[in-house]
Amino acid sequence: GYSTDEDDGTTNGEATGPLEGKAIYMVSDGTGWTAEHSVNAALGQFEHCLIDRACSVNTHLFSGVEDTERLMEIIKQAAREGALLLYTLVDPDMAEAAKHACRLWGVPSTDILGPTTEAIAAHLGVAPSGIPRGAPGRKAPLSEEYFKRIEAIDFTIKQDDGAQPQNLSRATIVLVGVSRTGKTPLSIYLAQKGYKVANVPIVMGVDLPKKLFDIDQEKVFALTINPVVLQTIRKARAKALGFGSDVRSNYSEMDHVREELEFANKIFAQNPVWPVIEVTGKAIEETAAVVVRIYHDRKKKYFLPRISKRY
Amino acid sequence: GYSTDEDDGTTNGEATGPLEGKAIYMVSDGTGWTAEHSVNAALGQFEHCLIDRACSVNTHLFSGVEDTERLMEIIKQAAREGALLLYTLVDPDMAEAAKHACRLWGVPSTDILGPTTEAIAAHLGVAPSGIPRGAPGRKAPLSEEYFKRIEAIDFTIKQDDGAQPQNLSRATIVLVGVSRTGKTPLSIYLAQKGYKVANVPIVMGVDLPKKLFDIDQEKVFALTINPVVLQTIRKARAKALGFGSDVRSNYSEMDHVREELEFANKIFAQNPVWPVIEVTGKAIEETAAVVVRIYHDRKKKYFLPRISKRY
Ligand SMILES: Nc1ncnc2c1ncn2[C@@H]1O[C@H](COP(=O)(O)O)[C@@H](O)[C@H]1O
Ligand SMILES: Nc1ncnc2c1ncn2[C@@H]1O[C@H](COP(=O)(O)O)[C@@H](O)[C@H]1O
Ligand SMILES: [Mg+2]
Ligand SMILES: [Mg+2]
Repeated sequence: GYSTDEDDGTTNGEATGPLEGKAIYMVSDGTGWTAEHSVNAALGQFEHCLIDRACSVNTHLFSGVEDTERLMEIIKQAAREGALLLYTLVDPDMAEAAKHACRLWGVPSTDILGPTTEAIAAHLGVAPSGIPRGAPGRKAPLSEEYFKRIEAIDFTIKQDDGAQPQNLSRATIVLVGVSRTGKTPLSIYLAQKGYKVANVPIVMGVDLPKKLFDIDQEKVFALTINPVVLQTIRKARAKALGFGSDVRSNYSEMDHVREELEFANKIFAQNPVWPVIEVTGKAIEETAAVVVRIYHDRKKKYFLPRISKRY
Repeated sequence: GYSTDEDDGTTNGEATGPLEGKAIYMVSDGTGWTAEHSVNAALGQFEHCLIDRACSVNTHLFSGVEDTERLMEIIKQAAREGALLLYTLVDPDMAEAAKHACRLWGVPSTDILGPTTEAIAAHLGVAPSGIPRGAPGRKAPLSEEYFKRIEAIDFTIKQDDGAQPQNLSRATIVLVGVSRTGKTPLSIYLAQKGYKVANVPIVMGVDLPKKLFDIDQEKVFALTINPVVLQTIRKARAKALGFGSDVRSNYSEMDHVREELEFANKIFAQNPVWPVIEVTGKAIEETAAVVVRIYHDRKKKYFLPRISKRY
C-alpha cells in the first residue's frame, strides 16, 4: 500500500534533501496516469519487500512536461536524488532527449509506453502522430463515449444503496450484497468504464424490492465475503462513522455478521442465475474484472471469454 | 473514441470470423486494466487514422490468464486472426512461453510491463516475486489506503451537486462551476484516487452557500468552459433527459448559457484565490491531472511541481 504525502506532513525531495528509500521519477507529457498505473502494477511485484518497509520507495509524478527545458531540470534533479526515471513522451525529440540526458547524467531510465506504441504502429502500418494529448489545438471531440461515461456515472450515483428501485430495469449491471461488501466502490469503478450500475443492499430480515426479480436476471451479480473479514471492515466503518463500541449496534457483531451472510446466501441459492462473486481479499478492480468478464461472456458465449472494443 | 461491443449488436472474433480492422489481443494474468490503460493511451497516437475509421482497430482483453494451456489457446487464436498480442504476465515461465509461442506461430508480441518491472528490480536491487495479483493464497491486506479510497468515494457521492454544504469543511477538494462543466465525473475520478471531493453548482442568480467562503479557500477550484461547447453538452443532456426542444427551458439556450458563465466568472473574479480551470476540450482525467498538480503544488511549493507517494 502507499500513502500520499498529504497524510504524513513530511516533505520529500529538493526542499529538505532526499528521504530514505529509493526514488522513482515518473514523467509524462500528458496526465501521468498511465505511468502511475503501470508503476503501481509493477510495484505489486515487490510487495514481499515493501510490506514491512524492508525496502521503501518514493514515487514522484511530473505531468504535463511538454518542453525540453523542464525535462532537463527534472532529469538533473533525478540525478541528484539517485532516482530511476520512467517516462511516457510521445514527441520523438523529447523521448530521445530524455534517453540521451539520462545516459549522460547516469540516471537509469525506461520508456514505459514507447515499445507498445511501436508495436501498434508496425501492426497498423501507420506512424504515430508524435503529438501529446492536450497539445494546443488538439481539442478532444465530444465523443459518444464521453457522453456515455458521464451518463453512466450520473445514473450510478443516483441508484446507490438501493435508491429508486423503479429504475433497476435501466441498469446494465445490478449488484446485490450485504453492507460493506464493496457495492458502492465497485459500482463507481464500473460506471467509469461506461456501465450503468445499480446496487441493492441486502439487510437481514428485509425483503428485496420486487422490481429486482422482474428485470433480466442475467444482469444481477451477487457479492459475498468471508465473515471475519467483513467484521473487520465493519468495525473500521463504525469507527470512521464515530460509533463507539458501547453503542447498541449489532452491525459489526460476529453473530449478526454471520446470520446476515447466511440470510444473503439463502437468497442467492434461491436465485441460481445470479453469479456469486467472492470479494474476500480482492481489490475493487479485481472484483470489477470478474464482473465484466462474466457480463461479456454471458452476452456472447465465446470459446475464449474476452472483452472486445472497437476503435 | 471507442465503442464496446455491447452497443452495436455485432459479434467479433471466432464466433463469426474476423471483422474488418486490425485485431489487438491483450492478455493479463491479472485484471487486464493495466494493458487496457496502456493500449488506450498508445492508441491516442493513431487518432489521425482512427478518427474517420481510415484504419480501424478491434481490441480483445483476456484477463485472469493463469495457466499455459489457456495462454496457448489465446495465442493460437491470435495467429488465426492475424492479431498483435500485448501481454502482462509476471510469472517468468508464462512470459517466456508467450514470447516463444508467438515467435513460433508468427504473432507479433510485446511485453507491456516487463521492462518497467525489470528497471525497478535493478533500481531496488530486489528480484520481482513473479507471483500474479490474485494468485491463490495472496490475500491483499486491508490496507489503510483501501479504507481511505472507499471513504473518499462514500463522502464524494453524498456531497454531489451541492448536497450537505455543512460538510464542505471535511472535503479535501471543492469544485465549483455551472451545470455540465463536468463537476460530477471529475469528483468521482478524484475520489477514486483517494481525495474527498465536494462539488457545488453555480446557478444563475442563486447565492452560493455561505459555508463555501468559511472553509480554507485554497481547497476550492473553479471550472470554466467555452459557451459554444457547453451548449452542445447541455443539448445532449436535455435530449438524454427527454426534454423536447419545445419544452420551456432556457437551460441550453445560448443567451442563457453565456449569461450564466458570465455570472460564474464574476464570482471567480471576486475569489482570486480559486484557480480557474478551463475544461473545454479536456477529458475528465486531463482536468483531474491539472487539479491534482495545483493541489499538491499549493501544499509544498517545489521548484519542480510533483505528486509524491510513499510505498
Ligand atoms: N488521446 C491521446 N492522444 C495522443 N496522445 C495520448 C492520448 N492519450 C494519451 N496519450 C499519450 O500517452 C502517454 C500517456 O498519457 P498520460 O496517461 O496522459 O500520461 C502520454 O505520452 C500522452 O501524450
Ligand atoms: N498487487 C499486485 N501484486 C502482484 N502483481 C500485480 C499486482 N498488481 C498488478 N500485478 C501484476 O501486474 C500486471 C498488470 O496487472 P493488471 O492490471 O491486474 O492486469 C499483471 O501481470 C499482474 O499480475
Ligand atoms: Mg454502499
Ligand atoms: Mg453534476
